[in-house]
Amino acid sequence: MKKIIKNGTIVTAADTYKADILIENEKISLIGQDLSDPAAEVVDAKGHYIFPGSIDPHTHLEMPFGGTVSKDDFETGTIAAAHGGTTTVIDFCLTDKGKPLQDSIDQWHAKSRDKSVIDYSFHLMIGEMNETVLEQLPSVIEDEGITSFKVFMAYKNVFQADDGTLFRTLEEAKRLGALVMVHAENGDVIDHLVNKALKAGQTDPIYHALTRPPEVEGEATGRAAELTGLANSQLYVVHVTCEEAVEAIAKARKKGYNVMGETCPQYLVLDQSYMEKPNFEGAKYVWSPPLREKYHQEVLWKALKTGDLQTLGSDQCSFDFKGQKDLGKGDFTKIPNGGPIIEDRVSILFSEGVKKGRISLNEFVDITSTKIAKTFGLFPQKGTISVGADADLVIFDPNVERTISVETSHMAADYNPFEGMKVTGQPVSVLSRGDFVIKEKEFVGKLGKGNYLKRSRYGELTSSKEELYQK
Amino acid sequence: MKKIIKNGTIVTAADTYKADILIENEKISLIGQDLSDPAAEVVDAKGHYIFPGSIDPHTHLEMPFGGTVSKDDFETGTIAAAHGGTTTVIDFCLTDKGKPLQDSIDQWHAKSRDKSVIDYSFHLMIGEMNETVLEQLPSVIEDEGITSFKVFMAYKNVFQADDGTLFRTLEEAKRLGALVMVHAENGDVIDHLVNKALKAGQTDPIYHALTRPPEVEGEATGRAAELTGLANSQLYVVHVTCEEAVEAIAKARKKGYNVMGETCPQYLVLDQSYMEKPNFEGAKYVWSPPLREKYHQEVLWKALKTGDLQTLGSDQCSFDFKGQKDLGKGDFTKIPNGGPIIEDRVSILFSEGVKKGRISLNEFVDITSTKIAKTFGLFPQKGTISVGADADLVIFDPNVERTISVETSHMAADYNPFEGMKVTGQPVSVLSRGDFVIKEKEFVGKLGKGNYLKRSRYGELTSSKEELYQK
Amino acid sequence: MKKIIKNGTIVTAADTYKADILIENEKISLIGQDLSDPAAEVVDAKGHYIFPGSIDPHTHLEMPFGGTVSKDDFETGTIAAAHGGTTTVIDFCLTDKGKPLQDSIDQWHAKSRDKSVIDYSFHLMIGEMNETVLEQLPSVIEDEGITSFKVFMAYKNVFQADDGTLFRTLEEAKRLGALVMVHAENGDVIDHLVNKALKAGQTDPIYHALTRPPEVEGEATGRAAELTGLANSQLYVVHVTCEEAVEAIAKARKKGYNVMGETCPQYLVLDQSYMEKPNFEGAKYVWSPPLREKYHQEVLWKALKTGDLQTLGSDQCSFDFKGQKDLGKGDFTKIPNGGPIIEDRVSILFSEGVKKGRISLNEFVDITSTKIAKTFGLFPQKGTISVGADADLVIFDPNVERTISVETSHMAADYNPFEGMKVTGQPVSVLSRGDFVIKEKEFVGKLGKGNYLKRSRYGELTSSKEELYQK
Amino acid sequence: MKKIIKNGTIVTAADTYKADILIENEKISLIGQDLSDPAAEVVDAKGHYIFPGSIDPHTHLEMPFGGTVSKDDFETGTIAAAHGGTTTVIDFCLTDKGKPLQDSIDQWHAKSRDKSVIDYSFHLMIGEMNETVLEQLPSVIEDEGITSFKVFMAYKNVFQADDGTLFRTLEEAKRLGALVMVHAENGDVIDHLVNKALKAGQTDPIYHALTRPPEVEGEATGRAAELTGLANSQLYVVHVTCEEAVEAIAKARKKGYNVMGETCPQYLVLDQSYMEKPNFEGAKYVWSPPLREKYHQEVLWKALKTGDLQTLGSDQCSFDFKGQKDLGKGDFTKIPNGGPIIEDRVSILFSEGVKKGRISLNEFVDITSTKIAKTFGLFPQKGTISVGADADLVIFDPNVERTISVETSHMAADYNPFEGMKVTGQPVSVLSRGDFVIKEKEFVGKLGKGNYLKRSRYGELTSSKEELYQK
Repeated sequence: MKKIIKNGTIVTAADTYKADILIENEKISLIGQDLSDPAAEVVDAKGHYIFPGSIDPHTHLEMPFGGTVSKDDFETGTIAAAHGGTTTVIDFCLTDKGKPLQDSIDQWHAKSRDKSVIDYSFHLMIGEMNETVLEQLPSVIEDEGITSFKVFMAYKNVFQADDGTLFRTLEEAKRLGALVMVHAENGDVIDHLVNKALKAGQTDPIYHALTRPPEVEGEATGRAAELTGLANSQLYVVHVTCEEAVEAIAKARKKGYNVMGETCPQYLVLDQSYMEKPNFEGAKYVWSPPLREKYHQEVLWKALKTGDLQTLGSDQCSFDFKGQKDLGKGDFTKIPNGGPIIEDRVSILFSEGVKKGRISLNEFVDITSTKIAKTFGLFPQKGTISVGADADLVIFDPNVERTISVETSHMAADYNPFEGMKVTGQPVSVLSRGDFVIKEKEFVGKLGKGNYLKRSRYGELTSSKEELYQK
Repeated sequence: MKKIIKNGTIVTAADTYKADILIENEKISLIGQDLSDPAAEVVDAKGHYIFPGSIDPHTHLEMPFGGTVSKDDFETGTIAAAHGGTTTVIDFCLTDKGKPLQDSIDQWHAKSRDKSVIDYSFHLMIGEMNETVLEQLPSVIEDEGITSFKVFMAYKNVFQADDGTLFRTLEEAKRLGALVMVHAENGDVIDHLVNKALKAGQTDPIYHALTRPPEVEGEATGRAAELTGLANSQLYVVHVTCEEAVEAIAKARKKGYNVMGETCPQYLVLDQSYMEKPNFEGAKYVWSPPLREKYHQEVLWKALKTGDLQTLGSDQCSFDFKGQKDLGKGDFTKIPNGGPIIEDRVSILFSEGVKKGRISLNEFVDITSTKIAKTFGLFPQKGTISVGADADLVIFDPNVERTISVETSHMAADYNPFEGMKVTGQPVSVLSRGDFVIKEKEFVGKLGKGNYLKRSRYGELTSSKEELYQK
Repeated sequence: MKKIIKNGTIVTAADTYKADILIENEKISLIGQDLSDPAAEVVDAKGHYIFPGSIDPHTHLEMPFGGTVSKDDFETGTIAAAHGGTTTVIDFCLTDKGKPLQDSIDQWHAKSRDKSVIDYSFHLMIGEMNETVLEQLPSVIEDEGITSFKVFMAYKNVFQADDGTLFRTLEEAKRLGALVMVHAENGDVIDHLVNKALKAGQTDPIYHALTRPPEVEGEATGRAAELTGLANSQLYVVHVTCEEAVEAIAKARKKGYNVMGETCPQYLVLDQSYMEKPNFEGAKYVWSPPLREKYHQEVLWKALKTGDLQTLGSDQCSFDFKGQKDLGKGDFTKIPNGGPIIEDRVSILFSEGVKKGRISLNEFVDITSTKIAKTFGLFPQKGTISVGADADLVIFDPNVERTISVETSHMAADYNPFEGMKVTGQPVSVLSRGDFVIKEKEFVGKLGKGNYLKRSRYGELTSSKEELYQK
Repeated sequence: MKKIIKNGTIVTAADTYKADILIENEKISLIGQDLSDPAAEVVDAKGHYIFPGSIDPHTHLEMPFGGTVSKDDFETGTIAAAHGGTTTVIDFCLTDKGKPLQDSIDQWHAKSRDKSVIDYSFHLMIGEMNETVLEQLPSVIEDEGITSFKVFMAYKNVFQADDGTLFRTLEEAKRLGALVMVHAENGDVIDHLVNKALKAGQTDPIYHALTRPPEVEGEATGRAAELTGLANSQLYVVHVTCEEAVEAIAKARKKGYNVMGETCPQYLVLDQSYMEKPNFEGAKYVWSPPLREKYHQEVLWKALKTGDLQTLGSDQCSFDFKGQKDLGKGDFTKIPNGGPIIEDRVSILFSEGVKKGRISLNEFVDITSTKIAKTFGLFPQKGTISVGADADLVIFDPNVERTISVETSHMAADYNPFEGMKVTGQPVSVLSRGDFVIKEKEFVGKLGKGNYLKRSRYGELTSSKEELYQK
């Protein structure tokens, strides 16, 4: 079944122009003015932008954490994502030290395959690096198409890896064509500060922030960046929150190191004071790294503009306030970390970024879609509007004004951290490989229709394009 | 007459994909796979890239300088440009203090209108800023569509403006929607160093470099950047050559100042040692700013990669070695500044940049075309391959190997500064608004067919796009 | 007549220890414990510090400015200085373009020789640099012992020199062994901003600050620093007020350039809001550069601590509020620039610096005395407490608490900018070459007793000490 | 027995002047011109400098390392130190995890008390931080006067502490008034690089350098500095070798962190190429961190000049080439780390620093003596020439030219890393608490005459001096 999207304004990372799009066989087959095809369904996008579907590079759907499991799974999570204009998610597959990596990957396939309404892929956590792990990596990359590995520098005695593991992962990633992702906080120092706080009876949510100050993020970011330079490898720092970390990334980039950074909407618009809300409501805003003092927000915005930060992820990992977040009453360390973000990520960047003049429309597309596709081996299948690409498209009304609320959101958690926030702009309809997932703001997709995406090796598609296309 | 470009790989600042392009009425009307139209001429681009025509933002064609006139005029200059893949030039219109600006603009129109084989536009030099000049600016912008002003911080007693003029130009540009360009060297200090050298009998070409050291460029660049920040205006630094200037631009950008920088191919691949060639041959390599020590080259490349520099201009201003450059025998200050570059600018960046892995293919297009179009108010008419854009296209063979030589070049001067340099890649055919200018490496264009381009105000098309397109 | 200072704690730039000091023939002849000499007058310094007399490197006594003359002359000025613990002043000798330098120097001798109660010396303003000026410099240095030249980058059409003059002065200073001092503000830009403000009817004192923003100081400081590096010369930036200028100096020092900086007490403790005081009282706080927003103060303190700034001057240039400052009612450009500072400079640094833990006691001595003596060719005759040095000594009570007020100050102006400020610490007695100038807080000196000091060439005494002392 | 040192030029961190010194009861009692005392022995220092005795803050005498013991003990080591102008050493007392700290301290007393010919003190290694260790610290500080703790970030599975231990040590040091010292290299990464090298058969001495590149030192230095800022504590980075580490320290200091750095003579004058000497001679130059490429040397010199580095230690830890260094034949990891430096430290800084114009005479004294005394709680008893200070004095001939050689040195090892190096300047006579240890270049001291020095808490003597002296 063909479709023609008519009268919209196409926006890519480089271009903005009015044209029609013909979709055939899940892909974009023609772009032109005044297209017509009697066999095609016509979709009118007049007055709307058409963006390439956004990619969320950082989700934790149905993830076990601290004795509970994150509320949104691949069903509610991807439906909410689609409502928000996201047509691909890359979820973090956690692993256990000493166990086969494939076991974890299989678990993740099991959780997602019958539920996801949009395309999806996995990153793989690396907790240790030794001969056994090394032997498994080629198949992870070739058979599973997983080409990005996550290393935790925090969560001591849980996920945390030592510097030797991080460095070896960087070396192996370089050799194999993968990208290393880090959660950059100094876990040893945090562990001590947390113990000290608890001993002092400091148990409220705000102490979650005070025991993970920006310095521990800045330090760890700088450390990971230095090791990347030494290994001549590639690094992607997830959820950057503060000036200290941005400085470390900028310094590394200036030295010519291949270090990239992601931030998340919560760090752009919320601040540490939210964690002091009474009645334990501060727990709703517990992330790691934590929210920061307000002045960090402009640093993050400026870094998105100058390119010292490249992408926006959600770090989606939602928990109910009642029954989950409140596990941490009387002990902030027991508050599950994370929140429901996946649905509002794109709209917040559009409203606060484009509408407020902080970034251009093309930069917005780049940050939420194109650069992510290029970085994680999905381009040009995903991340752009060009002939031959998957017809993952977002028809977006840039002028509608609305208020974010848990009442109208599609995520499963019982609160929304952006509750009451006014934003301008909203996805009206969303297509995944040519089919509507969202049509006129209603979900019309199908569980399990999303495909698992094997991804290219790091840099393979973008850097060697030239040779590929000459064949 | 329609055309279809078939089987090529389209490359834009964001995308790389295989598709066909239909051209109608000078514009791109359709992009798709396997296009056909019986009425269209078919051009086979198999095995070739299709780039948006490059824009040269920095040329001096038929320019009077030091008692002589630059050799290439709008005829030979634009023909050579087209051979090199350039489909638009923006030439610098010089003005005289105290005389009506329109007089100078009229002169420039007279020089170009019957000669240019590709589209062209003008920047306007500002030598002083006072009530008389101020009164003329609105018509320059509205009637002539000249939205970029050049201020010289060097050439004492000739072009040099004082800081008050520069600052006021920045203020007025902000108010009126224009972009300020600077030649950033400290003219006062140079003047003294030159006098000192001449007094000491140091008259060889190399002293041109030694009397304009990188520090005077770095200082002036920093000064212009600071004044831009203070005026909250926008600045484009032409022909950046050295680490000191790159640092100044990077620092300003980090502070959030809207400061951009251009470099030129000669600074990327030639160095100061060329100016010491015997038999006065050093004179062939006399530019202002001068060639630098070799280590500056990697700084410039890195800056193009990180975005601290944005664009590549040629600073085309050619003079014959015999009869022009040799005016400076015995006194380096009399050597006309400049060289023939317009033809090789694009090829050198492709060969040394893309082929050697320093920048990606998309970055190459951005640096030579898209960012220039966006910066100077020509986008999206120029600078991209999208439906509705002018069909300025370059069909480029990325694999041919050749040697640059005056023998095979189309510029008028009697030498080529890149003589003997091996490059990979060459434009095969070039279209300007849908018509061939170069076909299979032969000039097939027509004198005077190039249009004068009135340009949009600074930022007008890119930043307010959203509103424009919603109407 | 001999003296023994007993029981005090001697403080130098390096040491703090209890010992007695024997003074003979104007000099320190012996330092030891329990000194006694029947022929000596004994001065008890129990509970007090003994500092080397402070040197004020930046005064404008009886200086013509804007149609009036600064209120404190060499009589009231040096008496007040002595009360404040200062035993040497270096005053700025202004010159007129085109007139013999010696004429100006003679004028300055005439003003000072019969009045100064403490030793004094002169810096010389350089307004232009040409053959005539060049010929006069050797005698300025050798006959007058004036080894520091001041260049103004601001006060357009009055004192302002162009960059050529600044650069040549740096070159000549290097050759001759002198130090170049700059007033670093971009005069061209200020001139324009001032005209714009006046045209807009912005005539209140606060507009003095708003038309000379920190950017114009930062820019000019960076420019002067770069030219110094290029000339491989030495530079001393007077009255540094802001982060922008500190950054420029720090950057230059990091590159190995010999660039130093001075700040003044007013910039350390007062801020721009003072200039908004009603009833034209803002005029009392008009300096060039102006007071800044409060956050700059900590930047200055930190720079004094790390050594990016080296010294503290007063920029003493006092005017009465009534009859002088009020010349600028209705036009801030007519407010004479400057204020009465000479008396409180040392006490403010002690109270706000040492007492508040920002700098150590030894650093305090270094900043107010030793480094100044070394920088300006007065060491070790001045600037330290060592055997053989001039007995310029301050007996200082570190614990007395008092309030600064025009009522109790000894300067001639009719107000004190620090009125009401509480400080801890006060000079009790002050000796100049062994004689009391201040005794138990009373002036006991003699007009004209101060000697004119010929100073050594820049670096001569400190760097080549080794050879000097081996002879 | 009194002594008068006559006719010398006294040099302190601030002053240079000619005067005589009277010594009574081990201390300086009088400084003046033409001193005489019939009861005093007169020592003529004509043509010589008199420096305060140098302090070596970093020695490892008779230290067990890798199955052997460093060759110089407190006898040969302190005799050689004295020959070189050093009158105090602070040696590192190693501890064992899980054992009482006092046991280690007692061992160190046992090794030193009957042997040292000059005064000495100890730093204490902290390998872990827990309640047991915490309980012992007050007595270490109060009873033993040990107020500096060393933490190793390298030597995995031997000395290396984790970041939690480092951070807690910083916190406790802040609380108790101690200074934390770090060996800053990333031990985890080194461990991996070393294993990789050995596996690849890379066993020569040069691989010691190649497996500990500057990046691992820079990273660890930055990490330690960040943690210091977070703990608001104080840090002293031992043996800084490279630009990366200097940058990290400078950045921290600019942020206002109390971070200091020490370098060693070997890093100032030797480079990595020495480690490639044939016949295993490279082993003579194995230190950790290793020697670096030559360009780092100027960075270190500049940092000593600007104050980003403060002190010079020797890291004395000598091993014979035959019988000790050669343990590492066929496996560079078995080469004992360290070399004989204690004797030449001061002379090399004088010759390469002062004589070559890189630092001033006063800076030389500060770097080798005064700042060390102030930093480690020994001032003003040690580190200066002032009335009341210990009469630790060096009479130094600044003009003698000589060649360093194992033949003429007094250290026990069978080679000298500076063999053949020409230096200008040499200590002629050296006094420790008023008695000659070296007289006319001959050792005349006595074993065991050196006193153990209990040191003040960090900052106690310098910052609160004011109050101390007012009592």
